[in-house]
Amino acid sequence: MMTPRPTLEGVAARAGVSRATVSRVVNGGSGVRQPLIERVRKAVEELGYVPNQAARSLVTQRTGAVAVIIAEPEFRVFSDPFFERHVRGISRELSANDLQLVLLWVEGESDHDRIARYLSGGHVDGALAFSLHSDDRLAQLIAHSRVPYVFGGRPAAFSSLGTPYVDCDNRGGARAAVSHLVSAGRSRIAHIAGPSDQTSAVDRAAGYHDVLVEADPELLQKGDFTEESGARSMAALLDRCPGLDAVFAANDLMARGALRTLLERGLRIPDDVAVVGFDDMGDVASGAVPALTTVRQDIEGMGRLMVRLLMRRLDHPEQAGADSVITPTVLVQRQSS
Amino acid sequence: MMTPRPTLEGVAARAGVSRATVSRVVNGGSGVRQPLIERVRKAVEELGYVPNQAARSLVTQRTGAVAVIIAEPEFRVFSDPFFERHVRGISRELSANDLQLVLLWVEGESDHDRIARYLSGGHVDGALAFSLHSDDRLAQLIAHSRVPYVFGGRPAAFSSLGTPYVDCDNRGGARAAVSHLVSAGRSRIAHIAGPSDQTSAVDRAAGYHDVLVEADPELLQKGDFTEESGARSMAALLDRCPGLDAVFAANDLMARGALRTLLERGLRIPDDVAVVGFDDMGDVASGAVPALTTVRQDIEGMGRLMVRLLMRRLDHPEQAGADSVITPTVLVQRQSS
Repeated sequence: MMTPRPTLEGVAARAGVSRATVSRVVNGGSGVRQPLIERVRKAVEELGYVPNQAARSLVTQRTGAVAVIIAEPEFRVFSDPFFERHVRGISRELSANDLQLVLLWVEGESDHDRIARYLSGGHVDGALAFSLHSDDRLAQLIAHSRVPYVFGGRPAAFSSLGTPYVDCDNRGGARAAVSHLVSAGRSRIAHIAGPSDQTSAVDRAAGYHDVLVEADPELLQKGDFTEESGARSMAALLDRCPGLDAVFAANDLMARGALRTLLERGLRIPDDVAVVGFDDMGDVASGAVPALTTVRQDIEGMGRLMVRLLMRRLDHPEQAGADSVITPTVLVQRQSS
Repeated sequence: MMTPRPTLEGVAARAGVSRATVSRVVNGGSGVRQPLIERVRKAVEELGYVPNQAARSLVTQRTGAVAVIIAEPEFRVFSDPFFERHVRGISRELSANDLQLVLLWVEGESDHDRIARYLSGGHVDGALAFSLHSDDRLAQLIAHSRVPYVFGGRPAAFSSLGTPYVDCDNRGGARAAVSHLVSAGRSRIAHIAGPSDQTSAVDRAAGYHDVLVEADPELLQKGDFTEESGARSMAALLDRCPGLDAVFAANDLMARGALRTLLERGLRIPDDVAVVGFDDMGDVASGAVPALTTVRQDIEGMGRLMVRLLMRRLDHPEQAGADSVITPTVLVQRQSS
């Protein structure tokens, strides 16, 4: 038996108001008195009426919008060039597919549930999330929201669950950097690592160890990806191992900090100590003095790939598996090595 | 007569599938074969079934999310400190009200319709929009979307329609800046204006003319709010009016550019030429050499006010009128005047 679908007219008749009034209430417009609003809402609920847009959305199951979630507070979102480049690639690719980007970020853990509600609320077709940390509950909430998603950067806890992600070849890039230093005759190669709750830092350190299997633990120092931590780590390394002749820093900002400390101590670069970074973003590496040898990753391209992966999951949900993409990295040689 | 509301069970029975399958399809989850998905969707449509979240949203008419729309392309959103501060105030105030901020920006005119669709699609409870230009169709689309909204900055075309907005007292601030120069005995006061399609620039120029009713038109030069345009405008003014003894620039970036040109020409600041800017954002004015006298506006506070104004419109739609807020500005005296 075919139940007739409730119409705007039906709601108007039931509520005893005009069609225009129902339309205004249902579309959230103002200018309707509260008692009338309540009568209309009651009729809407009793009849199970679905306004056009929602009805369309139920049929196509598409909103035309994709959430981009950055698991960092607002001040970092706007100050770190990494996010800008990542978002730029995503924005362009979504725009080319006539999808609306809606950007969300996370001020603190209290935002997690609200973001999960928004994702589950049917307001977006999919989600792209990055800068997730390994102790981050957000990754789980996103994975359980039933919205198709792709992560930027290899997720830590989810690697075994077939979580789709896009990352660059952090480990291979680090191997190339350290091999380059070995080929240049360096024998005491230090590593300034990033924070161990980020897989990019973990994978770059793994690449260092792939080449230097028996590396002296004294040659390892952990930073936090800031320039300041690079300067401090370099000082600690020099105090501990004055004979070191090269350093591979897990990102360019830390490598710049290391350059500063080396120059302050009167060491010549690369004659006394060669330096290699990672990222090659903007002019951080190319504008350093001396210009930094580094490992280039295509951050904007990774953003575009995240969108393409998500589109595939949207268009072919039945094929969605553990399809992740690792993009290649390239060693860029400059004066510092 | 009470029509029974269609249920999940009803949809399952009609489609001939399990309750769990309907739930998966309706919630956009994967793992259901395409023919089944189509049967469920057909049943959903025929019965006019509304899933819980959508039903709740129809009753409360709330999604818990607010759109923040910046009418600028991504690269400006991420590079101009004005947006960061504005968004920071908005983000904190929304978060305090347990509302989810979703940020949208505009790469080009082709994005306008998509943003209007998103706003009309019931995905947000309200919208906050800023950096709208006077020739911008987006302002009209937002106003017609039936979603409650508040603009940041006085809109040009809409001023007569009672559009709600938050702005600082651009005209009063400019009057204070120019009066200060007059009090200090300056008699040939130039003005470097901003682009005339932005009301902030128009209002600041109006404040200049309020004080200097008969200002020599030769003392006026138009810039585009960039430091470079300030430097160029200052050069043009000096070539035209070598006797000028003060300049009021419509923002601090242009004032910095003016400082640069004045110093390059060997003029003493403030002895030969006094300089006043507008904004006092970050260290643009305070970090200039010499430090810039300027008009301070509370950008973060304006963001918070936009949220409060929107909340009032959401909670009391029947009272919503042309309630706009103009926040005060303060003259901050430093070495340049």
